[in-house]
Amino acid sequence: MHETIELFHGSGAKKSHQLIRDIFFEAFDNPLLKEGADGVVLPNFQHELVITTDAFVVSPLIFQGGDIGKLAVCGALNDLAAMGARAYYLSATFILEEGLEIEKLKKIVQSMGHEARMAQVSIVAGDTKVVEKNKADQIYISVTAIGNPETECAPHPKKLRAGQKIILSGPLGDHGATILAARKDLVFEGNLKSDCSNLQPLILPLIKLFPSISCMRDPTRGGLSGSLHELMAVDHESKIGFRLNEEDLPVSPPVRGLCEILGLDPLTLANEGKMIIFCDADLALPILQQIRQHPLGQEAMIIGEVTDRPGQLEMKTIYGGERSLIWAEGDALPRIC
Amino acid sequence: MHETIELFHGSGAKKSHQLIRDIFFEAFDNPLLKEGADGVVLPNFQHELVITTDAFVVSPLIFQGGDIGKLAVCGALNDLAAMGARAYYLSATFILEEGLEIEKLKKIVQSMGHEARMAQVSIVAGDTKVVEKNKADQIYISVTAIGNPETECAPHPKKLRAGQKIILSGPLGDHGATILAARKDLVFEGNLKSDCSNLQPLILPLIKLFPSISCMRDPTRGGLSGSLHELMAVDHESKIGFRLNEEDLPVSPPVRGLCEILGLDPLTLANEGKMIIFCDADLALPILQQIRQHPLGQEAMIIGEVTDRPGQLEMKTIYGGERSLIWAEGDALPRIC
Repeated sequence: MHETIELFHGSGAKKSHQLIRDIFFEAFDNPLLKEGADGVVLPNFQHELVITTDAFVVSPLIFQGGDIGKLAVCGALNDLAAMGARAYYLSATFILEEGLEIEKLKKIVQSMGHEARMAQVSIVAGDTKVVEKNKADQIYISVTAIGNPETECAPHPKKLRAGQKIILSGPLGDHGATILAARKDLVFEGNLKSDCSNLQPLILPLIKLFPSISCMRDPTRGGLSGSLHELMAVDHESKIGFRLNEEDLPVSPPVRGLCEILGLDPLTLANEGKMIIFCDADLALPILQQIRQHPLGQEAMIIGEVTDRPGQLEMKTIYGGERSLIWAEGDALPRIC
Repeated sequence: MHETIELFHGSGAKKSHQLIRDIFFEAFDNPLLKEGADGVVLPNFQHELVITTDAFVVSPLIFQGGDIGKLAVCGALNDLAAMGARAYYLSATFILEEGLEIEKLKKIVQSMGHEARMAQVSIVAGDTKVVEKNKADQIYISVTAIGNPETECAPHPKKLRAGQKIILSGPLGDHGATILAARKDLVFEGNLKSDCSNLQPLILPLIKLFPSISCMRDPTRGGLSGSLHELMAVDHESKIGFRLNEEDLPVSPPVRGLCEILGLDPLTLANEGKMIIFCDADLALPILQQIRQHPLGQEAMIIGEVTDRPGQLEMKTIYGGERSLIWAEGDALPRIC
């Protein structure tokens, strides 16, 4: 007999309290979380804070290379990494569907706790709500991450300038392809594995060594193409575009295979352990060499450059031609993260 | 024809970006939110931060006295108020159900923006996800609030001591009764109104005047009874209990009427604009007088005291007898907030 989440677990009564204590406090074990006040006092912050927040609704909950808990922690940490900031604390909310197996909840929550400990961050505040059957899909998680900048001057989209180089830290599309294959029950699913990883250990030493890195972005939902289009849609002082070299875009053989069979573009598939890094042209090679020394960046490539053609995402194809990459109107898979 | 949320609004493609810009940026209008980076740099914080996080899943979304957007902002601000902290910034995530009317989303998001402006806080970071029909109930919101303590030494459950007095800032159960009546389509619903309010303007001047206030708690889900039981379940240095005087408990006539008809206890009904304040006995009257001068505290009462009977929540009844209030096992209404 499997114990499941019932509506009374969300009532604020004794059973809610027991659930929090037995599942969450145990997995996230830290003194601040257990204090039991309405909020948490976080000591010793620098004057400048960096925060980011994300909701996670991925389906399936558990996939090759990760689960919604690991994804939630890594996703928040990677957004701070993109800001050149070291994460110190996380807060998390959980929306639980009536009928969710408590063993499954425990597994996901423990995965979050494990990932947070590996990253040396503490999950210090949280909230859980329970909704009726068919009012959620087992579990949704929202995470806010708080940290401090590692450099005087944070990388930022407004620092993008024509002539800068674009570096990608590794192959494209592993997370999106893995979720897609799992969702469609494809037989070659076994070769695919999400790249879901915490990029702080790769990115923070890099930004300390190269504080002039102008901008970073983790190409999650919408993929590399979506992220570059988003950067162009932000209001910049200097209006910029991007140009990619197709032959320099790293894509793993199983992802390429899936894309060919299903007619997908690896540039629009989500990544959960990759960073796009923009820098002045003369620093591109030293930065690339540094990235490749880290296990998370061994397959990094210089993939293109920033141009002065506002709003244009162009690609030099492997056949030597030019292609314009439009911003997808949104036929991509929902609930990829 | 009503425009609705579709799955493509959550794809990270062009339509996602347009939704964010047209609905959220407009309602939350502030320069930090619009920067378009993966996170936000918040300048000029003191060394000690206070944070809190909450998920909101209330049903119905719009009720007498408020809506899920107002509730989400006030709920987070009140948790910081209970810590004696002034809120400066909010982050928010939105889980949207396919088919949600965009007009309704706009109304809720604008209500959040309005409430935040009234409170002089900025909603600086956010994320939206879209899930399929029957995988949510229109809209769920998670909010994290960040602030700084207003006093050297924050009020905290660990400062509770036998002999301290308990003050309640106003009548019990208005929010819970309003939601319950709306859910059951009761005819006298019209007399009920949620107390949903931002308590920062009441509480922050109070804690500056009376920094020795030992602890504060906003009695939301689980009501006054649930909150007091939670405080007893936290590990304290001194093991304490509570004793209430039933005749001093403020309850409005419509809430009392609803409770009598449905056999409910106003002590277990949720509040969203009330604070429980604990202080040394000699300060109870001056603090009460101060609270009553504020529009949000005109009906405040001294309702009981902290005892040295660990884990015991007792009540002197209006007939002069003694009653022990147990911690409900969880038959209360879910999705009250």
